[in-house]
Amino acid sequence: MSRGFPQAEYEGRLARAQARMADEGLGALLLTTEPEVRYFTGYLTRFWESPSRPWFLIVPSSGRPIAVIPSIGAALMASTWIEDIRTWAAPDPEDDGVSLLADALREVGGPVGVPSHLETHLRMPLADFARVQRLAGLEFTDDRRIVADLRAIKSEAEIAKIADSCGIAARAFARMGEISGPGVPLAQVFRDFQRLLLEEGADWVPYLAGGAGPEGYADVISPATEVPLAVGDILMLDTGAVRDGYFCDYDRNFAIGRASEGQQAAHARLIEATQAGLEAARAGVRADEVWQAMAAIVGGGEGAGRLGHGLGMQLTEGLSLTAKDRTVLQPGMVITLEPGVETAPGRIMVHEENIVITEGAPRVLSPLSGPDLPVI
Amino acid sequence: MSRGFPQAEYEGRLARAQARMADEGLGALLLTTEPEVRYFTGYLTRFWESPSRPWFLIVPSSGRPIAVIPSIGAALMASTWIEDIRTWAAPDPEDDGVSLLADALREVGGPVGVPSHLETHLRMPLADFARVQRLAGLEFTDDRRIVADLRAIKSEAEIAKIADSCGIAARAFARMGEISGPGVPLAQVFRDFQRLLLEEGADWVPYLAGGAGPEGYADVISPATEVPLAVGDILMLDTGAVRDGYFCDYDRNFAIGRASEGQQAAHARLIEATQAGLEAARAGVRADEVWQAMAAIVGGGEGAGRLGHGLGMQLTEGLSLTAKDRTVLQPGMVITLEPGVETAPGRIMVHEENIVITEGAPRVLSPLSGPDLPVI
Repeated sequence: MSRGFPQAEYEGRLARAQARMADEGLGALLLTTEPEVRYFTGYLTRFWESPSRPWFLIVPSSGRPIAVIPSIGAALMASTWIEDIRTWAAPDPEDDGVSLLADALREVGGPVGVPSHLETHLRMPLADFARVQRLAGLEFTDDRRIVADLRAIKSEAEIAKIADSCGIAARAFARMGEISGPGVPLAQVFRDFQRLLLEEGADWVPYLAGGAGPEGYADVISPATEVPLAVGDILMLDTGAVRDGYFCDYDRNFAIGRASEGQQAAHARLIEATQAGLEAARAGVRADEVWQAMAAIVGGGEGAGRLGHGLGMQLTEGLSLTAKDRTVLQPGMVITLEPGVETAPGRIMVHEENIVITEGAPRVLSPLSGPDLPVI
Repeated sequence: MSRGFPQAEYEGRLARAQARMADEGLGALLLTTEPEVRYFTGYLTRFWESPSRPWFLIVPSSGRPIAVIPSIGAALMASTWIEDIRTWAAPDPEDDGVSLLADALREVGGPVGVPSHLETHLRMPLADFARVQRLAGLEFTDDRRIVADLRAIKSEAEIAKIADSCGIAARAFARMGEISGPGVPLAQVFRDFQRLLLEEGADWVPYLAGGAGPEGYADVISPATEVPLAVGDILMLDTGAVRDGYFCDYDRNFAIGRASEGQQAAHARLIEATQAGLEAARAGVRADEVWQAMAAIVGGGEGAGRLGHGLGMQLTEGLSLTAKDRTVLQPGMVITLEPGVETAPGRIMVHEENIVITEGAPRVLSPLSGPDLPVI
């Protein structure tokens, strides 16, 4: 699949943002994080891993975005559709882009909307943000959730990229027998699974988690230990592989050597809950209603926690399938269904699939698992 | 090498922070980012890749840190030395840890120091930070750079972990001939080099960049393209591989098929500049003086940019070797020496090594390159 997007993709995003900005009376959006900047520019680099330098993008009420960035990024930003690129020699202990940014904001005019709600953060030093506000002399406010709302609805081109990442993970999961089995340390499985993802076409592997144990695992976020897999263990791997800047995020469970009846029943219940989520996940339905459909099967009430979430340029983004999230599903939203069951005190099993909300039944991007727990 | 650190490592970090807090009259530090939280707790997970949930750590003026975190992290945090762990069911659209955090801060008392200077950011929604400040009713201020100052001086145990990561990259670089040569697309080299890093023991590979071309590359941050390597190209890979939470960050250049005199001369000049950096990098010397020693050889004046930086739990952290950074080198600082030369208009070559500042000559953690440009 070709890299990046045609310019029309970015023109559409900008037009939709500017229409919302006009409605909300905003003169500019100020963006500082990787996915926010990339959404409007296509600027894709792993260099965000270096936190030393801030990066700024201004979305004006009309005209193309203005990039105010460290000079080290000038060549790459010039390869995008952005024309107005202003740079400084970062990091500068005296003025790390502050006056350059304030000048640009003054030109564009306020009020300046900054993403400020759930799941957002401002990726620049707090002290410098205060200085920018003083120097710009404009009103700063929140972004009225414009950026999050736009990003939540994926274009067909974005969905194709997420599907591509899901396919990479599917091919890697199909090769699990090559890298795991009784006696293999979990840390080795983690390393080898990342290798498989790369061999199958991932550009990089920002996320891999998992766990193993006879009655499931204690959580789904711990790093791997050197403890070897044993016959009777359940092994789970949960991956966020990236291709061209878009994530997949799903997991698979495997029984090592043999699957007990209890393990098979737990897995079948997870698949049943996933199916209930698939049936509930329709445009117009709320996130908490999909959560309810799945929670009714896995149990645990509100303690069941988050049973899925949005997905895209981030491993997790947008809505959460929880008891409290009233977000209404819309066509083009890509979400995960991620039910979990307690298998013993302090031990769980979790299953996850990736789907797209449509006008009808959801489209499944990950190869939907059946109830049988695969044995390795 | 064993994972993690003995508890004494964290006790020492905490004692040093609390001594500085007493000097500065701070009642608490409020920390929100991965390396800040891990520095005082040992809490290590890739789950930070999910930006949906905020995480908070309070360092009080006496006693152990208090974790105020999403319940999904409770099991893992309980495996660290932290005892006071308060959780909520995140993400919660109504109160995403805000009141829990404000309560904890009120118990501890202010003023509350928040990292606010160069290279820092606050990893929580701006609107929620404003609510926390109102609810806590305490004075919020900056952290007086306490956290950055402490983190800049690595313990021997930390240095050993960085050395371990450097060794992994060294073994991968030694295998470059297996994965690169004329006709191999650069994107394939990137994928395969990440695979080699995993095979050689990396837990994960958060950063890989590089470039290729007959006269060097346009920048050091662009993603790879499918353009195949050609005889006469210079190939550079720059990696940040992680083992047990600590980075290496160095690069290597290779000539594909043959090295021209001009390429060899450019590489030799980079090594000469590195040697000049090594000779200048002594405790008591300023960062800008080390920069000057290297810039005198690679030229370019202030346009030479940043010629190195601190390294540790982040790919880049702490001081910068620039014309403006007056940071004084101290024993225990781990930094990179990263000179670059312009080889043609808009084309560069960059070399990088990792070193530790000591009471005498620096200790080199990456296997120091000689002047000869390796040919593949």
